[in-house]
Amino acid sequence: MKVIEGWLTAPRGFIAAGVKAGIKKNGKEDVGLVVSEVPAACGAVFTQNVMASPAVSFSRRIARGDYARAIAVNAGCANACTGGRGWQDACRMAEITAALLNCRDDEVFVCSTGTTGQFLPMDKIAAGLNSAAGALSADGGEAVALSIQTTDTFVKRSAYEFTLGGKQARVAGIAKGAGMIHPNMATLLTFITTDAAIAPALLKRAVKAVADLSFNMVVIDGDTSTNDSMIVLANGLCGNQQIDSEQHPDYAEFFDALLAVSVDLSKMIARDGEGATKFLTVTVQEAPDFAAAKTIAMSIAKSPLVKTAFFGQDPNWGRIVCAAGYAGIPFEPETTTVSLNDLIIFTKGISAAADTVKLAEVMKEHDITVKISLGAGKAEATVWTCDFSYDYVKVNASYRT
Amino acid sequence: MKVIEGWLTAPRGFIAAGVKAGIKKNGKEDVGLVVSEVPAACGAVFTQNVMASPAVSFSRRIARGDYARAIAVNAGCANACTGGRGWQDACRMAEITAALLNCRDDEVFVCSTGTTGQFLPMDKIAAGLNSAAGALSADGGEAVALSIQTTDTFVKRSAYEFTLGGKQARVAGIAKGAGMIHPNMATLLTFITTDAAIAPALLKRAVKAVADLSFNMVVIDGDTSTNDSMIVLANGLCGNQQIDSEQHPDYAEFFDALLAVSVDLSKMIARDGEGATKFLTVTVQEAPDFAAAKTIAMSIAKSPLVKTAFFGQDPNWGRIVCAAGYAGIPFEPETTTVSLNDLIIFTKGISAAADTVKLAEVMKEHDITVKISLGAGKAEATVWTCDFSYDYVKVNASYRT
Repeated sequence: MKVIEGWLTAPRGFIAAGVKAGIKKNGKEDVGLVVSEVPAACGAVFTQNVMASPAVSFSRRIARGDYARAIAVNAGCANACTGGRGWQDACRMAEITAALLNCRDDEVFVCSTGTTGQFLPMDKIAAGLNSAAGALSADGGEAVALSIQTTDTFVKRSAYEFTLGGKQARVAGIAKGAGMIHPNMATLLTFITTDAAIAPALLKRAVKAVADLSFNMVVIDGDTSTNDSMIVLANGLCGNQQIDSEQHPDYAEFFDALLAVSVDLSKMIARDGEGATKFLTVTVQEAPDFAAAKTIAMSIAKSPLVKTAFFGQDPNWGRIVCAAGYAGIPFEPETTTVSLNDLIIFTKGISAAADTVKLAEVMKEHDITVKISLGAGKAEATVWTCDFSYDYVKVNASYRT
Repeated sequence: MKVIEGWLTAPRGFIAAGVKAGIKKNGKEDVGLVVSEVPAACGAVFTQNVMASPAVSFSRRIARGDYARAIAVNAGCANACTGGRGWQDACRMAEITAALLNCRDDEVFVCSTGTTGQFLPMDKIAAGLNSAAGALSADGGEAVALSIQTTDTFVKRSAYEFTLGGKQARVAGIAKGAGMIHPNMATLLTFITTDAAIAPALLKRAVKAVADLSFNMVVIDGDTSTNDSMIVLANGLCGNQQIDSEQHPDYAEFFDALLAVSVDLSKMIARDGEGATKFLTVTVQEAPDFAAAKTIAMSIAKSPLVKTAFFGQDPNWGRIVCAAGYAGIPFEPETTTVSLNDLIIFTKGISAAADTVKLAEVMKEHDITVKISLGAGKAEATVWTCDFSYDYVKVNASYRT
């Protein structure tokens, strides 16, 4: 498996486009299409938010099927909390796309992101989809990546080349952040394409497992969005023998490549959290089980006090152990060790009296790993997040204006 | 029951003092004593944080007893995450106080608040307790209230006069905020005195019930502190017949007075949240049960996106319904109504298209009530919180420097 440069169109048989349809106030790309030239096995996971967008409700139905052809997406308006009219708009978005692509509307995933509580401007959506369909090409990968951004400051993409039974396969993904991020299935819009051949039912299980190890381990602000969607399309054009079970000799290679793309994108989302000045990796080790490790790591990663301390470059480890302490998981302070980039700051229930000069240097780093060893087992979990700065408040105090 | 002006010394037989012992960097009052001239029935609730301060561990033991004489407190250093030495320091604080007051050390509650992870400066604590003991008087109520403050911008106190079987009784309380507030039993230091006579076992139950309806309904940042302690002393000097059961004719009056003080203090804590520019009351109505209503109200009150929108005076109701939606409690958008200060903004699954001029006026108010009716039952819960501003980040990015 090796990293390659490339967009969603790097795997064989995928074309894409992103166009400016006038939905975003800044006039940038806001309607996009990702299309597989042949039906692709599909797997997807979505938000668990009760107020899920009609786009999610619609795409959830598509994901129950085995194969799909396209993803139609817009940014600038989330089509969330829009009731019956929102549902009709999501259906209409798929119908328009299906007509343009000459496929069925139950082969089209629909995604929206942006402000909640507003109806989709369907005239702009229709015109945008029409332009996008005309612009579809193997060079459209960057444009579609731009068309899903909202407050993101950089484009998030990742791609790998790997081998399946002698055939060269590729997998590529894009994602958007950057706020309302506490995925509970997948983060707000992630699309992944691959030319590997894999049975639909197996792909669905792999996507769920990968999401739990990647996108579900990111938190920016603890707000689980109404629109979270992770969609994977696998069109089989690389020519490998179809992977049809977890025991197939190529499954591990495929899973690792899908996981690699997903972890890359997850880290980028945390790195580009709204207002972020630090990228924080929180690892809880020596826990009784994965769930306990994740709960404690999330408690630390979500704490506004921990996040503002990192923004202020204040090595206030008391807040880290405090946040671990209120996670609801019993553990012994006496067997617990906390380190920042391998500098031990807390051990056996008290301060490790670390070298304060070294500690100040660590806090100045952009990338900081908080590691907590509980001395209570062998399980481990890693969560990615960022700090909490003035700019988080600024971005979100005036998001709609 | 009527509101009175007064400090912890308003009930008969309580004296107090607060002195400057040089623990706080700003040189203000930082060691305090609250003393009942006769043994007082005691009830208390404490943080559920695994990393509870040794002061909490010590006071938890005192609370198991029926009667106590005093509360010894310091601000500026929380004595949290301090291991065995922290435990010895908490014990020593009680021993010094007991010697000064000529009582037993198992009659002394010990509380600390401030930076975590630092050892108590015991020389300053000892000197401070000595000065405080010499300064004890009925006029010391304000000084002890000052001695428990950290980032609070105003002193939080409440007092009532009420009647128990013809006898005039009083209850008075003080509290401190202002960050690391998501109490899970009681908020970071609340002391309440009363001259009512009540059986110790009954007082303990009343304190727990009152905490669940007051301090446990406040959230500033979702961080549950290591030092939360609510301590109530009832010395019986008003001369009422001892209240010995929930069926006693005076119990309801006593409970209401204790609740009134606790709710007043809880609201003040939310109003003085770090960096707060708004006081927010989040009420969830028509819920299947109290726990569901509280969970949804807390989800909204803790959401950084909701809180920054209020700071920006942006009526972004999408974030409110989104936060309700990810609380983990199923409900029907179709039967849900959301209002801000009685202006309906969301109903039957979509925007209520409220008058935008009126809505902008509501958002400019300092006190805003968010009300959500789920149409799914009769239970209700109210949570108090504040907005999330630049100053929250500022206060916490440089707390220790």
